[in-house]
Amino acid sequence: MSERTKLRRLPNRGSHETEQVNAILDAAYLAHVGFSVEGQPFVIPTLFGRKEEKLYLHGSAASRMMRTLEAGVPACVTVTLVDGLVLARSAFHHSMNYRSVVAFGTARKIENEEAKSEALRIISDHLIAGRWAEARVPNSQELKATTVLEFEIEEASAKQRTGPPVDDEEDLALPVWAGVLPLRQVAGEPMADALLPAGTPVPEYVTGYKK
Amino acid sequence: MSERTKLRRLPNRGSHETEQVNAILDAAYLAHVGFSVEGQPFVIPTLFGRKEEKLYLHGSAASRMMRTLEAGVPACVTVTLVDGLVLARSAFHHSMNYRSVVAFGTARKIENEEAKSEALRIISDHLIAGRWAEARVPNSQELKATTVLEFEIEEASAKQRTGPPVDDEEDLALPVWAGVLPLRQVAGEPMADALLPAGTPVPEYVTGYKK
Repeated sequence: MSERTKLRRLPNRGSHETEQVNAILDAAYLAHVGFSVEGQPFVIPTLFGRKEEKLYLHGSAASRMMRTLEAGVPACVTVTLVDGLVLARSAFHHSMNYRSVVAFGTARKIENEEAKSEALRIISDHLIAGRWAEARVPNSQELKATTVLEFEIEEASAKQRTGPPVDDEEDLALPVWAGVLPLRQVAGEPMADALLPAGTPVPEYVTGYKK
Repeated sequence: MSERTKLRRLPNRGSHETEQVNAILDAAYLAHVGFSVEGQPFVIPTLFGRKEEKLYLHGSAASRMMRTLEAGVPACVTVTLVDGLVLARSAFHHSMNYRSVVAFGTARKIENEEAKSEALRIISDHLIAGRWAEARVPNSQELKATTVLEFEIEEASAKQRTGPPVDDEEDLALPVWAGVLPLRQVAGEPMADALLPAGTPVPEYVTGYKK
């Protein structure tokens, strides 16, 4: 374990288990990607997919993030899932229940059209399984306009917090409600595009979406 | 507008209006903070508060993020809210409805105890208004163990996407459902701490929590 991913605080919340890292990555669809341009850090939200120890990112070929990352600069991909607010009796012991992964590595551009398309499928299936098989797949022109990156995870750490607040003994008698307020993401009613022929069925992977 | 926040892609989705930036910041509670240590970018999730053009961050005095940021290095604070999956007929035109802010600036450590406590109140009220007034406020020892940073936003950009998918004309006839699947965060049933005296009422700011 190098200095880079050494969990400096709360080591009991940290784990380097690949399974835990992958489970958190697979439960999420949004990543925040960090990179620097001339000493200025940028953090950009983006969708991602995963296969083994590799993450796939895509974007416009003209985007600054893609052009910076494809040069192979050091990057950081962070994924965070919030599970609840932890309300302690003291302000100091307030916390969040959450799962997060911080992954370090470098990206390379996928040039081969077939590999590019396959990486896009991985991103799509990661976001909403079933959609890729139904949508029109990208043509050559669309693939050219898209940069697809393979981000090799060199090191990653997972952190999570679960469970109730942990208050100091002497605060337990305070007349303050304490506990956890669970938070989760839910999908609402699918809103059909106005141009869709009436009666077009909503696919099950949409009505039953969970992530 | 400097190069740093120039919105290079999809400028119609970008706005530098302070009101829009603030509205997005205030609708969120989680930020991803980017900074570099010896050329390695880090992206760390954290809670935050806002007052005017300043963001407040807190953490253990021993944390790497706090120790790095308090030195006044260039940093980036990004906030992202996902509003829905945009399912187009073509894979290429898939998108997200979202709101995001990318803010650049530098942080300074708040040393004064009173100012520190006030910044913590701002963070707490930003996360769950009403809680600070009820919880036991931090004592001197707790304040000492906590680093509180004031992050001055020097430049920020907001981006958002709303509305239905935008497909190519020639794809409209494809027999593929298209539309938006709205996503939002909801709070579940508050889970009282096991050590709480029976009958302690759940505060309204918990039962009615929305963010």
